[in-house]
Amino acid sequence: MDSVQPNILSAADALALRYGAEGAPPAGPWNDHIALLLSHRSVRAYRPDALPDGTLETLVAAAQSAATSSNLQTWSVIAVTDPDRKAALARLANNQKHIEQCPLFLVWVADISRNRRLAEQEGVTLEVLPYQETFLVAAIDATLAAQNATVAAESLGLSTVYIGALRNQPTEVAAVVGLVPGTFAVFGMCVGYASSAADAEVKPRLPQAVVLHRETYGVPLQEQAHRAAYDSLMGAFSTRNGMAADTWTRRVINRMGRIAALSGRDRMVAALHALGFELK
Amino acid sequence: MDSVQPNILSAADALALRYGAEGAPPAGPWNDHIALLLSHRSVRAYRPDALPDGTLETLVAAAQSAATSSNLQTWSVIAVTDPDRKAALARLANNQKHIEQCPLFLVWVADISRNRRLAEQEGVTLEVLPYQETFLVAAIDATLAAQNATVAAESLGLSTVYIGALRNQPTEVAAVVGLVPGTFAVFGMCVGYASSAADAEVKPRLPQAVVLHRETYGVPLQEQAHRAAYDSLMGAFSTRNGMAADTWTRRVINRMGRIAALSGRDRMVAALHALGFELK
Repeated sequence: MDSVQPNILSAADALALRYGAEGAPPAGPWNDHIALLLSHRSVRAYRPDALPDGTLETLVAAAQSAATSSNLQTWSVIAVTDPDRKAALARLANNQKHIEQCPLFLVWVADISRNRRLAEQEGVTLEVLPYQETFLVAAIDATLAAQNATVAAESLGLSTVYIGALRNQPTEVAAVVGLVPGTFAVFGMCVGYASSAADAEVKPRLPQAVVLHRETYGVPLQEQAHRAAYDSLMGAFSTRNGMAADTWTRRVINRMGRIAALSGRDRMVAALHALGFELK
Repeated sequence: MDSVQPNILSAADALALRYGAEGAPPAGPWNDHIALLLSHRSVRAYRPDALPDGTLETLVAAAQSAATSSNLQTWSVIAVTDPDRKAALARLANNQKHIEQCPLFLVWVADISRNRRLAEQEGVTLEVLPYQETFLVAAIDATLAAQNATVAAESLGLSTVYIGALRNQPTEVAAVVGLVPGTFAVFGMCVGYASSAADAEVKPRLPQAVVLHRETYGVPLQEQAHRAAYDSLMGAFSTRNGMAADTWTRRVINRMGRIAALSGRDRMVAALHALGFELK
């Protein structure tokens, strides 16, 4: 697969990579932008090469161009390049070595502290701040921004991977990047050039029949059969890519079966309270 | 501004539209993909024209190509085209008429019901399901997917707007689109061709100095001055676009000052509990 340039694939080829030859929907409208989106893969091995000047600012401009709830812009991003700080974050995130490898590590932050400062400076109270809704809006805002940054990075030949494990020890992460009350690191993101050792293949997803509903939710009649087919697809994908050849079903059970698999994220409500999110 | 095609703007012009001439960062790496991202604007007036065949499936393929936490894919999307159902959803979302106007209304769903069914069918318990972390993962997954769909739609000459007001009355929305326990409509999204009456101008954002931090969070020394400059920029934007010429500061206070402005979202925790998210 190494020689494939996924962003020049035809619609049919790109859809077959994403869903398997059997599960792909018919090809619809198509262009280079959509080809880029379909070619996404998360990369967990990076070359040390620095990014061209202005790359960070371009990614942030793309991120800020995403929609944001009521234009509140309740997010921030921290660009970490210091090796010691990346190493500290890697240790807090299950020792994921790519956090140290990548030249740029972005910490995406749900941020209502800016609103708190505004309220203090203006002498007003913002009654909405302590609510679950406000935390959710901030997390969504950060996520919309991050995904635009990902698309921009990939368009420049860079790769990324989201690091949810940054939520394993939120207060310790907050200390490493100097977070203030009213901020929470929703996830991290490695940015850099994929090393040749990086997984080269697009990961298949569940068939559209399972995820896409028409008019109302409706549990798909063939959901179990679709899952069985996807289990086969993911098993073969894992074998081809030198991973433990588990089915998707087995991976879901491993990841969600026992609280220990949350690696501390079962204590997130307490951590959020400590960081200034009341979640009322 | 109507004749501008923002996706062919130069970096400098696109950045000036997004940040104002004074606040724009120096132009960095640039290409058509990044130009497309920077040209985003939310559209709240649609022509009734139907979408080309296969458009929905293409948007969903783009959405499914976004990263998803541990490949769990804890989201679904409901494509609503029925006029009566769109009207019902519009009524539940502050009577936003564009929900009725747009040919396709997407309901983006945080979905752990699929995992629940898997657990039942496999005879296992998924201990992780009742946690806040799991709700957050599902909401993030849905948001990553939705943003890719937005980028794909805009690349096809379509417009979108996120509808957070779908969270005003979550249990009523759930009834309209037939949600099952373990699903929650995170937000809606109008998709269609912008009418000529739609706002044509890219909305400015806060300067990068306020949002982008280096190595650690650090409250920007000039944050208040940056906010004042942004207030001027947004005031002028509002005047040019026939909106009440409020500053950003005033809009934040209006939107976050009083609980009434949440339009019911202060009761979201109770709604999430009712819909099967324990948020432990």
